[in-house]
Amino acid sequence: MDPFPPWQHPIAPPSESHYERALAHQQQLTKPAGSLGQLEQIAVQLAGLQATDTPCADRIHITVFVADHGVCAEDISLFPQAVTGQMIANFVTGGAAISVMAQQLGASLEVVNLGTVSAPPLSEGVIDESIAAGTANLARQAAMSEKQLQQALAAGDRAAARAAERRSELFIGGEMGIGNTTSASALACALLHAAPQELAGPGTGLDASGLRHKIKVIELALARHGESDEPLACLASLGGFEIVALTGAMIGCAVRGIPALVDGFIVSVAALAAVRLRPELAGWLIFAHRSKEPGHQRVLQAMNAEPLLDLGMRLGEGSGAAVAVPLIRSACALHNHMATFADAGVSNSGND
Amino acid sequence: MDPFPPWQHPIAPPSESHYERALAHQQQLTKPAGSLGQLEQIAVQLAGLQATDTPCADRIHITVFVADHGVCAEDISLFPQAVTGQMIANFVTGGAAISVMAQQLGASLEVVNLGTVSAPPLSEGVIDESIAAGTANLARQAAMSEKQLQQALAAGDRAAARAAERRSELFIGGEMGIGNTTSASALACALLHAAPQELAGPGTGLDASGLRHKIKVIELALARHGESDEPLACLASLGGFEIVALTGAMIGCAVRGIPALVDGFIVSVAALAAVRLRPELAGWLIFAHRSKEPGHQRVLQAMNAEPLLDLGMRLGEGSGAAVAVPLIRSACALHNHMATFADAGVSNSGND
Repeated sequence: MDPFPPWQHPIAPPSESHYERALAHQQQLTKPAGSLGQLEQIAVQLAGLQATDTPCADRIHITVFVADHGVCAEDISLFPQAVTGQMIANFVTGGAAISVMAQQLGASLEVVNLGTVSAPPLSEGVIDESIAAGTANLARQAAMSEKQLQQALAAGDRAAARAAERRSELFIGGEMGIGNTTSASALACALLHAAPQELAGPGTGLDASGLRHKIKVIELALARHGESDEPLACLASLGGFEIVALTGAMIGCAVRGIPALVDGFIVSVAALAAVRLRPELAGWLIFAHRSKEPGHQRVLQAMNAEPLLDLGMRLGEGSGAAVAVPLIRSACALHNHMATFADAGVSNSGND
Repeated sequence: MDPFPPWQHPIAPPSESHYERALAHQQQLTKPAGSLGQLEQIAVQLAGLQATDTPCADRIHITVFVADHGVCAEDISLFPQAVTGQMIANFVTGGAAISVMAQQLGASLEVVNLGTVSAPPLSEGVIDESIAAGTANLARQAAMSEKQLQQALAAGDRAAARAAERRSELFIGGEMGIGNTTSASALACALLHAAPQELAGPGTGLDASGLRHKIKVIELALARHGESDEPLACLASLGGFEIVALTGAMIGCAVRGIPALVDGFIVSVAALAAVRLRPELAGWLIFAHRSKEPGHQRVLQAMNAEPLLDLGMRLGEGSGAAVAVPLIRSACALHNHMATFADAGVSNSGND
């Protein structure tokens, strides 16, 4: 038996030789040096991660992790908790934003149910990893036990294993769970030693008084939690099952050599916990977009992340990451298919 | 015979009823209201422009307008002028950035040669609209005559006519011409009454001393040009053939009911001139990206434009617009294919 849990498995560094070769190749393409901006950086990063001269993002695996949150008892969301379960059905039947995007990208989409208050009958495309009917109320007690934490991490790792089985070139983790911006904000506060009013936001659309109440609930949770910023302690105390699973999935992907495209606020908080646990993970993450949720900015800064998109999205489900996929595909196509100055008989500038 | 030149033809307003219906439809989709950010706005804008309930950006027509610039005599670019002609061949053989992107998007790509110093032999995919072997040196005299101005506007309109023949749902105009950031910066200064040091930038990669020289050349041009901000006078005095053709093409597309996706700095300057000529054009433009060329910011502000992307690109050719196309396609797919709350049996928030 493996003496280490999956999230402790070794993460290999990117291939430096492929990275350097990709960087040199970009200088030879028929364009002013650097003129493709972040698209050049993405292609070069991916070449290093995939250890290839022709980086690629054709095969994408998307896992949406779903769970309910006991903190909904504190009335912190506009939507009833039943929506979590209802959305599982919507993911599977193709009506949710991430379903439409997966279809458009030709990506595989799976839904992992980690525990909901009202789950729909099991159906194809839903993987049952139920831990409990939602977390405990993190404002009053630890959201989950140590055992539940390990179960959620392992469920995330199993999603990474499925992505590897499909030979995925890129992994997207999404999330759905009414109340999960409250959990993610509390987690971010604990990990960053920040005050709730700096990080909490309207989530699905709270007004000013709703936001004030949400901040008070997070303050309550943090007072109970204490000062620890140890990532596993924070995740168990303040997390959601889906957030912990995302942490496990991103580490599991890097362990298996698959870069992860990081969605918005909630996935970024899971990424922050993951990077705190495993600093070598940082290079395996590509940040897709800047969410409108105000706390995202601070979480991104903490990881020196410069996301590709800033479209004012705040939907979750992995939708912002999915929308960014074509940019990565464009970056790869340009890297792999543009002519060099020599090939095309085009004169380079005097300074090259 | 038509008594009016094409750029004076009527531009219809967008369909208000389709716009309003699209706006209402977005509120019914299974997501928190507004959570798709700019993707919602794009889908709604396109529904109004295309007068449809199912906006679409499948059929894309890309025209790259190419011309040389007499101002290259002032030594304002890193690249030799021969590159303009060499790039025509690169566009056609598929090695340029815009060629790779057109292939990836399944878009039609044509190259219009408006006059180069060293043109390659005519080949398939290049449309010969040569006016002269480049413009005159705008630092010393008007870049073009009134007749040449009208020729370039008409060449742009003919590209719009070809886009309409192909039943294109979106038009992208690109440009290539060594020296054309000098022309575009001078034009922007004249149209916005701004000083060259506020707007001029490194173009393909000038260093600080090269940029200082470029600013002096633009100052010379503006001193010669005088105070006029009348768009046609500015275009003839300071423009390039490809910039004027872009102005004609964007107006020509709106006249024919085709929205244009605006690329970076140079195309935006052409758009600014076009909007000054025809204010009704403004609603027909979608701004693709924020260029790294510093003058772009001011030009965008002057049109209240909020581009979709900000990737530090500064290549031209229409490449930034092409990279933004998948975002528009995603916006349309989400608008057209997501389930409504009623369809999916998902509870809406209390405030809807």
